[in-house]
Amino acid sequence: MSSHPEQSAVTVLGLGPMGRALAGAFLDAGLTVTVWNRTPGRDAALVDRGAVGAGSAAEAVAASDLTVVCVVNYDAVDAILRTDAVAAALKGRTVVNLTADTPERARDLDRWAAEHGIGYLDGAIMTPTTTIGTPDGVFIHSGPSDLHQQYRPVLERLGGTHTHLGEEIGRAAAYDIALLDIFWTSMAGWAHALAVAKAEGIGARELAPFAVGIGAILPPLFEQTAAEVADGSYSGEGNPITSAASTMAHVVHASEAHGIDAGVMRAVEGWARRTIGLGHGTDGFLRVAELLGRR
Amino acid sequence: MSSHPEQSAVTVLGLGPMGRALAGAFLDAGLTVTVWNRTPGRDAALVDRGAVGAGSAAEAVAASDLTVVCVVNYDAVDAILRTDAVAAALKGRTVVNLTADTPERARDLDRWAAEHGIGYLDGAIMTPTTTIGTPDGVFIHSGPSDLHQQYRPVLERLGGTHTHLGEEIGRAAAYDIALLDIFWTSMAGWAHALAVAKAEGIGARELAPFAVGIGAILPPLFEQTAAEVADGSYSGEGNPITSAASTMAHVVHASEAHGIDAGVMRAVEGWARRTIGLGHGTDGFLRVAELLGRR
Repeated sequence: MSSHPEQSAVTVLGLGPMGRALAGAFLDAGLTVTVWNRTPGRDAALVDRGAVGAGSAAEAVAASDLTVVCVVNYDAVDAILRTDAVAAALKGRTVVNLTADTPERARDLDRWAAEHGIGYLDGAIMTPTTTIGTPDGVFIHSGPSDLHQQYRPVLERLGGTHTHLGEEIGRAAAYDIALLDIFWTSMAGWAHALAVAKAEGIGARELAPFAVGIGAILPPLFEQTAAEVADGSYSGEGNPITSAASTMAHVVHASEAHGIDAGVMRAVEGWARRTIGLGHGTDGFLRVAELLGRR
Repeated sequence: MSSHPEQSAVTVLGLGPMGRALAGAFLDAGLTVTVWNRTPGRDAALVDRGAVGAGSAAEAVAASDLTVVCVVNYDAVDAILRTDAVAAALKGRTVVNLTADTPERARDLDRWAAEHGIGYLDGAIMTPTTTIGTPDGVFIHSGPSDLHQQYRPVLERLGGTHTHLGEEIGRAAAYDIALLDIFWTSMAGWAHALAVAKAEGIGARELAPFAVGIGAILPPLFEQTAAEVADGSYSGEGNPITSAASTMAHVVHASEAHGIDAGVMRAVEGWARRTIGLGHGTDGFLRVAELLGRR
């Protein structure tokens, strides 16, 4: 245990699956953990393990120098924190908000915290609940460096890697959004492929080994194409965007021939066709990133 | 070299990047390789390496028992093969069509081949041109097993793994479509994430290491969720589709706040919201595959 008082106690607001995992990891690390959830009754198992169940959010945040918030979105965060009682109880203390939402919401909450004399750090958890308390957890943070340094020892009790991405409070949320964009778009491709495969008589277990092979080529391709995007080179050698668009059309036609909605791939093909129409047909597909970002 | 005459010679029609890679690998394996391309002049480097440059498609296919076709799509295949001269020259010979297109096009070409006494195998190449002739190439095939067995030794000169997926001629194309669906949808997510990140001041090289981390969790997730889809279980424990839809909305809002088109994620969120509306809100996201496949 640390001898610093601010590093021996933590409050966790929000006891959904992720909040419970966070509180459990803090308990396992020997901290004094106070917990609260808007819907009562979620704290029983944690209290059995030694957590203190608070009667209100204000009571909960008053119990520790550091409060970790993890709820469904910033509407829920605002509903919990932005009351006179909680704001008063938080004055001079620090909130680390691990709730996922947009960068603009993080910036808005940061302004509120500053107005009320509350230290504020934003963050995001990039890995599933099962990774919390293990070396596999990936946490990203943003906000004042000194505040991050002060509470980093507490946060590291959650295990995994903790990366401070910068002082700009919206930065962790921005990374989070970009990474969730990749994740859920990819999962949508997988779900859609399963539907098309099924219509063709191919079972999920038959397709999986090949899908795993496709998944394995993505990480090196992300690295390689990131360099191209950074350099503005977008090489289409061996696989120009015209060829990619042709493939996308095949996916659309094969899907719709089975009555399967292909709205996602139609939108992707649209990005590719517009990019070709702007004169970039011999470039690689990643040129669409530039088109999307054009103002 | 094999002593079977049908295994010592091969014709390659189509000399785009992939066709050239195929012909080059056959040459490296010591086969007699005849090549032809609709647009002349593409065969020079291959002829320098020992390939025979044919003056017409009919002349090319007459030179070998086996013809491998790899062009942009089946419109191009049809334009090359479906002439009286080529059909006559192919009679009693075999075509392995490694061109990517839809299963229905493969079935249509198979009918034409049968009518003209031409052996027909369909296939697809799942890996980039650089993998041809190396152990990393992934080839999938479908069509008559005896024909596949007969020409497998020639095809294996291309290196990599060759999987015969079944006798139904459209099967390789169906796998191909499903896997390309995953691949291009994922790449679209990556391109879009790069645009959103850039708007937030995050460079491609900064985002890449985290994107690689996201990419790495996809293959095990494909395996795990394939089992759920096969069993019809769709567990949403720890990450219900309601939570996924909320995340998708954040991505949409953060993108559009920067003027970035979010049509792809809007379509994905639509699948999720419809699935929730049909009463599956506590299931996992993969439940959308069932919705998509509903007739």
